[in-house]
Amino acid sequence: MAATVTIASGATWQEVAADRQKHRDATIAAIEPPIAEVKGIPQYTIPLAKEFLTAEEISITESPVEKLIPQLAKGELSSTTVIEAFLRRAALAQKAVNCVTELLPTRALERAAYLDTYLKENGKPIGPLHGIPISVKEHIGMKGLDLNAGFISWVGRVGEEDSHILQILYRAGAVFYVRTTQPQSLMHLETSSNLYGVTTNPFNTTLTSGGSSGGEGALVGFRGSCLGIGTDIGGSIRSPAANNGVYGMKPTAGRLPVMGWSATMAGAEHIIPTIGPLSTSLEGCRLFIKTLIDAKPWFKEPSLLPFPWKEEQVFKGKKLKVAVLWDDGVVKPHPPVLRALKEVVEKLKAKPNVEIVEWKPYKHDLAWEIIANLYFVDGANEESEAINASQEPWRPLSKHIIPDNPHVQTHTIPTLWKANQGRDNYRAEYAALWNATSTSQGPNGELEGMVDVILCPAGPGVAPKVDTAKWWGYTSQWNLLDYPALIFPVDKVDAKKDDSKDAYKPRNEKDKFNWDLWEKYGAEGYKDAPISLQLVGRRYEDEKVIQALEIMKEETGLPFVDYV
Amino acid sequence: MAATVTIASGATWQEVAADRQKHRDATIAAIEPPIAEVKGIPQYTIPLAKEFLTAEEISITESPVEKLIPQLAKGELSSTTVIEAFLRRAALAQKAVNCVTELLPTRALERAAYLDTYLKENGKPIGPLHGIPISVKEHIGMKGLDLNAGFISWVGRVGEEDSHILQILYRAGAVFYVRTTQPQSLMHLETSSNLYGVTTNPFNTTLTSGGSSGGEGALVGFRGSCLGIGTDIGGSIRSPAANNGVYGMKPTAGRLPVMGWSATMAGAEHIIPTIGPLSTSLEGCRLFIKTLIDAKPWFKEPSLLPFPWKEEQVFKGKKLKVAVLWDDGVVKPHPPVLRALKEVVEKLKAKPNVEIVEWKPYKHDLAWEIIANLYFVDGANEESEAINASQEPWRPLSKHIIPDNPHVQTHTIPTLWKANQGRDNYRAEYAALWNATSTSQGPNGELEGMVDVILCPAGPGVAPKVDTAKWWGYTSQWNLLDYPALIFPVDKVDAKKDDSKDAYKPRNEKDKFNWDLWEKYGAEGYKDAPISLQLVGRRYEDEKVIQALEIMKEETGLPFVDYV
Repeated sequence: MAATVTIASGATWQEVAADRQKHRDATIAAIEPPIAEVKGIPQYTIPLAKEFLTAEEISITESPVEKLIPQLAKGELSSTTVIEAFLRRAALAQKAVNCVTELLPTRALERAAYLDTYLKENGKPIGPLHGIPISVKEHIGMKGLDLNAGFISWVGRVGEEDSHILQILYRAGAVFYVRTTQPQSLMHLETSSNLYGVTTNPFNTTLTSGGSSGGEGALVGFRGSCLGIGTDIGGSIRSPAANNGVYGMKPTAGRLPVMGWSATMAGAEHIIPTIGPLSTSLEGCRLFIKTLIDAKPWFKEPSLLPFPWKEEQVFKGKKLKVAVLWDDGVVKPHPPVLRALKEVVEKLKAKPNVEIVEWKPYKHDLAWEIIANLYFVDGANEESEAINASQEPWRPLSKHIIPDNPHVQTHTIPTLWKANQGRDNYRAEYAALWNATSTSQGPNGELEGMVDVILCPAGPGVAPKVDTAKWWGYTSQWNLLDYPALIFPVDKVDAKKDDSKDAYKPRNEKDKFNWDLWEKYGAEGYKDAPISLQLVGRRYEDEKVIQALEIMKEETGLPFVDYV
Repeated sequence: MAATVTIASGATWQEVAADRQKHRDATIAAIEPPIAEVKGIPQYTIPLAKEFLTAEEISITESPVEKLIPQLAKGELSSTTVIEAFLRRAALAQKAVNCVTELLPTRALERAAYLDTYLKENGKPIGPLHGIPISVKEHIGMKGLDLNAGFISWVGRVGEEDSHILQILYRAGAVFYVRTTQPQSLMHLETSSNLYGVTTNPFNTTLTSGGSSGGEGALVGFRGSCLGIGTDIGGSIRSPAANNGVYGMKPTAGRLPVMGWSATMAGAEHIIPTIGPLSTSLEGCRLFIKTLIDAKPWFKEPSLLPFPWKEEQVFKGKKLKVAVLWDDGVVKPHPPVLRALKEVVEKLKAKPNVEIVEWKPYKHDLAWEIIANLYFVDGANEESEAINASQEPWRPLSKHIIPDNPHVQTHTIPTLWKANQGRDNYRAEYAALWNATSTSQGPNGELEGMVDVILCPAGPGVAPKVDTAKWWGYTSQWNLLDYPALIFPVDKVDAKKDDSKDAYKPRNEKDKFNWDLWEKYGAEGYKDAPISLQLVGRRYEDEKVIQALEIMKEETGLPFVDYV
């Protein structure tokens, strides 16, 4: 294998990018049997699967994790067959929407063969995820593989060992077979870099796949993966999950292992980034998180919290109390989002075991100011250096969040402490709002009968047109508060239902920017785009959020459409 | 009531201090019946109680929390009787060792009368701590009372409402009756300020009571309190507990509510200060923590972790595995400490349900460098300003930890992030040592059969001579790692048993400073001083540490002497 072309070895940024793409293409070309040439990528790429894959491959790759697990455990499907199918569909996804940084056929097939032998010899699966393929966002380090976090100047950094999360999933039986794209700096809600270009949306290639885990979002949406690993500090799991009509969860920080990932701002603890799953099923998300927590990762990684995964059904014999946040008061969501939210709320209102109340937004504009400031307390110096070191150009959304972000500040220690206090005050105020929904007190004065979850938009619209995903508030709000937040698919944009062009007078510049997009493109411009919503719980109530969505799905039949 | 004399109102620091002392003395003089004049404070002050208090007062104040609770709940003792006895003994403690900033007779007696009426009218106690007197370190804010954190320039700041912890304890039935001394800056392991002078040790007034919760330590040691609230960022609960022969626990950070305390460095999150109990009994500590956690304080204070207090007995049918750390490898403990540790270890070794292993210190010198640097990441600018604003002199131990501390640095954001990474690396390395004691693995690959607790010294000697408590390593080690740590009394210095003057060649300057003290003063110089030890658990294993000590007490009859 030739040495990696890097800035340090004297290459230009263009040469580095070309070399990475060449490497990626070689891994795609190595897939057996190869994917035939795709002539012309349609705007709606989902049907390509039927054209290029076998019926068995389609059946396997469209099975959710919970269906594959027992088939693999019983040997009804071999791990090799499963991984071959996903490698092929991932290769096709790359051709369709440019979401892959490299396939890993050699190590994945070796691993699958090992698992198949293990099952034969032992008569039982190696662990709870025996043979399950898992896709991995690039900046989650893998031993011996490049680890560039979207910066051209970082190409040539190599993972020293598999990240902690991969070690646990591996022990549980997972097979890693593909690494996925991310944007320059990891700080976009889209996926656009000078290394790999733009990752587009498989449902409508004029739209973004979202970001920063946009390679994952597109790949899982295309069914080139049934379970992938993303990361999220402002919406980076949730925007791609929402844009591609899949489930995605940002757990509370400190529950899942992150040791071994690579990003700027290591050592910062003002806003804690998180890691979590994207999956074609809710159960896929749940099993992912449960498997990691069952392994007690806190012994190895002392920043993690030793909460066991709680199996207790909290809504047994108890109403689910859902508060609905229609609009964050800063940027009004586009009509399809409000239409889908209304449909879900109306169905829930009819159910006797669900109570619906309203949730008024509380200073979400202030929340954005606080978090947009705390993202880059070194004045974004580290990001700027990482970009500029290669002379690669700044992508539009890197400019949006760094030089054009009026909240970026080079902090001193005293100003940082003051900003942290502002964050903590806001958190306490938001907690007080939640406490105020309490209807009774327990024997020790503890609050009871409070709202369980907040149901709200996942963003100010469906998947945005490329380079227009500028308002993070619908997702970053829950990073600031460190609340667990779960994305789920509801519907798709419908030219008839969503063609509303009601007069609306925007409240501010951000709102105008967003509304103008709707005015300009309308429902036709967002054709076929999935509509997703977000369910949010209180800090550390990750289990409750998942259980609440299980009930909501059962009661309403969510999602209301099929995506593949 | 006259307005408080403050620096802001134009007073000198001496005038501010005199006014605070005058206020304190007035609250002491208000106690009924008054404490007679104490003529000459003996070096060993404990017998003063018999001289100045009634037999009933002595009996009440020497009862542990768990004995008082049922008597109060049944009305066998009135809350008024109990609080009167503690007010009297606290007043005497002040005369003996200077540990009080003010008594609160009016509000305490009103509260006690209310509780007595409540019990009569309702036939049941108001909560689990009905009528229990609790002493409070000054910097834990109380509504309407001064809140100076040991700085003369801060006198005149007033608590806006009771701190969160006090609100919960109040609801549980507690009575707050006394506020206690703390050192200038709160960053000493002694208690010496220009507001109130030096708090001495009731067992030997040539020694320090410890700090920074030294008013609590002396008061609880003297039995002027059976349960008090301290705070700890480097040993500030544990040094006073150890020096005064009482129990004291620094829980893992994030378990107990701290909202409403006052200190420098608000907004810092590099090393998290903690709050916790000092008590004449282990059960007092346990009930204190359990009561707070049962009230689910995390709803109001979102930085807290929603772990319920675990009642499950973890050592049922399982050996307690204790690792012994004799010496941190930096500063060798004085002979009485090693003698007491040996006695405990020998007794435990004889027990079939306890396993003893050795624990080698791992770079405790590096640990000190990391934490001594992270204490003051603004270069201690805030402390310096708070001291200098009044022109009060720097106390010797303020100099020791700030200008004479070679690890203090004015950080920038990038150097702070790097220092945080150093901290996290050290934590991961220490966790790996603990993991390496595992003897088996669970079904999900989780580690089992590890060491349960580390048994170690509480400091490099018993209570030090005033102004000599310079080595924090035995306690600050567990703040850096954020491990729960529990102090328990074992024995007292014995001129015969402890007169060892073995030749010892110190390893370094710190070790020499400590050993020279022993050479100079010997057992006679530390006469009557309690000897205490420390039990340490892994992060968040607070319950396990308490249960381990319960077993150790039952097996060995700890403590080996009576203190009053």
